[in-house]
Amino acid sequence: MSLEMPEPDAGVLARREEIILALRAIVPGEGVIDDPSALLVYESDGLTAYRQPPMVAVLPETTAQVAAILRWCHLNGVKLVPRGSGTSLSGGALPLADGVLLGLGKFKRVLDIDPANRVAVLQPGVTNLAVTQAIEHLGFYYAPDPSSQIACSIGGNVAENSGGVHCLKYGLTTNNVLGVEFVTIEGEIMRIGGRGLDAAGLDLLGVIVGSEGLLGVVTEVTVRILPKPEAARALLLGFATVEGAGRCVAEVIAAGIIPAGMEMMDRLAIHAAEAFVHAGYPLDVEALLIVELDGPEAECSELIGEVEAIATGNGAVYARISQSEQERLNFWAGRKAAFPAVGRLAPDFYCMDGTIPRRRLPDVLTRMKMLSAQYGLGVANVFHAGDGNLHPLILYDVNKPGDLDKAEEFGADILRFCVEMGGVLTGEHGVGVEKRELMPVMFTEADIAQQWHVKCAFDSKSLLNPGKMFPLLHRCAELGRVHVHGGQMAFPELPRF
Amino acid sequence: MSLEMPEPDAGVLARREEIILALRAIVPGEGVIDDPSALLVYESDGLTAYRQPPMVAVLPETTAQVAAILRWCHLNGVKLVPRGSGTSLSGGALPLADGVLLGLGKFKRVLDIDPANRVAVLQPGVTNLAVTQAIEHLGFYYAPDPSSQIACSIGGNVAENSGGVHCLKYGLTTNNVLGVEFVTIEGEIMRIGGRGLDAAGLDLLGVIVGSEGLLGVVTEVTVRILPKPEAARALLLGFATVEGAGRCVAEVIAAGIIPAGMEMMDRLAIHAAEAFVHAGYPLDVEALLIVELDGPEAECSELIGEVEAIATGNGAVYARISQSEQERLNFWAGRKAAFPAVGRLAPDFYCMDGTIPRRRLPDVLTRMKMLSAQYGLGVANVFHAGDGNLHPLILYDVNKPGDLDKAEEFGADILRFCVEMGGVLTGEHGVGVEKRELMPVMFTEADIAQQWHVKCAFDSKSLLNPGKMFPLLHRCAELGRVHVHGGQMAFPELPRF
Repeated sequence: MSLEMPEPDAGVLARREEIILALRAIVPGEGVIDDPSALLVYESDGLTAYRQPPMVAVLPETTAQVAAILRWCHLNGVKLVPRGSGTSLSGGALPLADGVLLGLGKFKRVLDIDPANRVAVLQPGVTNLAVTQAIEHLGFYYAPDPSSQIACSIGGNVAENSGGVHCLKYGLTTNNVLGVEFVTIEGEIMRIGGRGLDAAGLDLLGVIVGSEGLLGVVTEVTVRILPKPEAARALLLGFATVEGAGRCVAEVIAAGIIPAGMEMMDRLAIHAAEAFVHAGYPLDVEALLIVELDGPEAECSELIGEVEAIATGNGAVYARISQSEQERLNFWAGRKAAFPAVGRLAPDFYCMDGTIPRRRLPDVLTRMKMLSAQYGLGVANVFHAGDGNLHPLILYDVNKPGDLDKAEEFGADILRFCVEMGGVLTGEHGVGVEKRELMPVMFTEADIAQQWHVKCAFDSKSLLNPGKMFPLLHRCAELGRVHVHGGQMAFPELPRF
Repeated sequence: MSLEMPEPDAGVLARREEIILALRAIVPGEGVIDDPSALLVYESDGLTAYRQPPMVAVLPETTAQVAAILRWCHLNGVKLVPRGSGTSLSGGALPLADGVLLGLGKFKRVLDIDPANRVAVLQPGVTNLAVTQAIEHLGFYYAPDPSSQIACSIGGNVAENSGGVHCLKYGLTTNNVLGVEFVTIEGEIMRIGGRGLDAAGLDLLGVIVGSEGLLGVVTEVTVRILPKPEAARALLLGFATVEGAGRCVAEVIAAGIIPAGMEMMDRLAIHAAEAFVHAGYPLDVEALLIVELDGPEAECSELIGEVEAIATGNGAVYARISQSEQERLNFWAGRKAAFPAVGRLAPDFYCMDGTIPRRRLPDVLTRMKMLSAQYGLGVANVFHAGDGNLHPLILYDVNKPGDLDKAEEFGADILRFCVEMGGVLTGEHGVGVEKRELMPVMFTEADIAQQWHVKCAFDSKSLLNPGKMFPLLHRCAELGRVHVHGGQMAFPELPRF
């Protein structure tokens, strides 16, 4: 693998027994795991190409324990990697050989459901799907729905600012989180945000959501819950050209229609999905759109008609409206199975995650074809088209020498092109270890330094999830893009007039 | 006034001529104002009880000029107060006797309108209402609508995270801003966020929105624009008790209905507004709700019926649905004129801005009556009831010795009670100078220190809008609540593995 991992600190490794004892004093019983074979379950997350077991894992059950662990690690200079369900696709929960793995898996309780204020209060280990399951009897649901929603935790969603097919209309995690209980590396327990829309003072909630475990540990999450729509219908649209599908997406949004979801698949993805789940997709088209409208029945029907007219105007050669709830779910079954379906086309695939302004879809697809030919690797495309979030799946064979490196270079080229088109490096999977060296493609030296200063304002010793999100120093220096911030910068006192 | 103002720095005052020359070298012509009588126009913002002319004012026209001004002030240790239209109700733009007033009034251009991506790009001096006026011919509007929208600027809205009656459904400014161009105190120009929902790395946008000019200067704003709804209708509901109105508000939200606006007025405010604009309000009720539904016509009618049924179930004694667009606007005319209308009840009033969980409305109103009796000052209540944002208007007479101090104490008691009920110090007006000493009521020592560290990560010399948002040190020490952060805290280098 091309990933550079930090050299473990021999001094910390020598203190392993002392560290384990200290953790046991905080979390008694089976909450501290130090058996090497048991630690193997934590060696990677959803990006399984990278593997590293932690020095020790600790599974606290209370916020007070989390605070005590962080305080002890801070005083003793020991690094920590927080982990939810370990479904990160960017290596965000990759452990450190000389670090503690802090698992939040025991924080499983739904603490409060408050329909009058339309909020639910959750412990971070509750899975994304379990949030909706806990409130659906009241007619509510939680909108962001990553494909991993059966497994991924709400705490992990906060760390990665996760998305999903319904984020086009309802926003990403950051738009659906109202408050958190948050423990700093110094062991201070804070409440940030709450059940309402605003708070006084600096709004730290936005910078915490999506901070990938680098600023602190979230021990409670307050989310916005939404009433289930009266109706939901899906429209399957086939196009003879990818350009036509791309223009259709842009025109739907320009017409003021925000579908609940608007997903796009290319020929390779369509064929793979159809062979896998028999969703009823047309096989003679270059691009397929699945457009879902939700809301009151009357609105739904009207908007479906409008979307169909826009599709026809952009050369759609196939259109089918779901005639039953079963058929609607069938349409989605193909899309949701696209990743495993593509997995049957090649021994391995590498899932990328970039964004572009939606009118650039055709440009990016054309470039992707060129790159595919250049690298000699196939690529299947599955997009959250409505919000311009691409998930190209690069096909390779890890047992073929050089194939993985080529896949990684191919992926990096796609992300560079996304940024060139006005997009960004990640739509919903995070930077993690995967994309840290690409940060200077998107950000200037001043941008990264400013983000680093904010990181340091929370974690001055850089003990929380080091090696993630920020490019490694010597790589940055090589690139000549990132300033080496060697000087000491002092926090002035609070204003003294 | 009870406001403590910082003692001006004699060293800086002695360098006034040098500072003016340096600013003139950056902004030629009439862009630098140093005539004392001309500077009087800047001596206060919408909180006119506090007055202080700046040392000098500068009105740049380009981002490069803003960057040069900030860089020069940073190198020369000169403080700055940024200002939009000067409509802040918390003294957020109150100048400093030894500081530069940085006016963004010349940044008046709408830079881009992009319906396909549903965004508009604006210079910060564009007024809130002008945003909607620039896009309404395309069928779009900008949702957050502060009462001052004719005058207040979009840059000021970003600084204060402004709200408005439509924020219940569509969110505050922070939910409608996608990106900014931002100049740091060191003169670095950054782009934060963009036209999409997510960005890689630490999300600095959330902490910038609502930062009251303490982190940097916004020179361009990208906002989300929304399609105009097909229909909008308003419902006027009268209640014999404030409790009934409060329960109605909570039940509407719990039923999964999010009105476009849900406003509440108490008897004093109703009578004042009716006498002022003859909106057709019932005069024999204790509380009035104005509930607006928008969306497709069919949805609107259905929801109006549901809201009316909930109101009846909570003892509404009066209900009227707007029968025409004219009548709908009439219902709102009373609400929008409530502040000037209440202005006729007493020589002066003091407008407060706190929030509470919406089910606490009756408790807060009861407490307000007690406090009104205790202080001997009348209070009229106008609420954004749907999101629990209170605007009590405390009536007083500035020419009556002690009355203003009583009004301020009364206001502080209301905000303390809001926090006690689980609410916050400000819903949309900001902390500014007005509420800075109340921050420890809401935040712990660790909370304020963490916010201060983030402030320092942007502005290490504390030159940007000092004296706002954070409690003054010696006051904090008196309160014994805020830690004196005297030690030096170093920024470590970027990770070097």
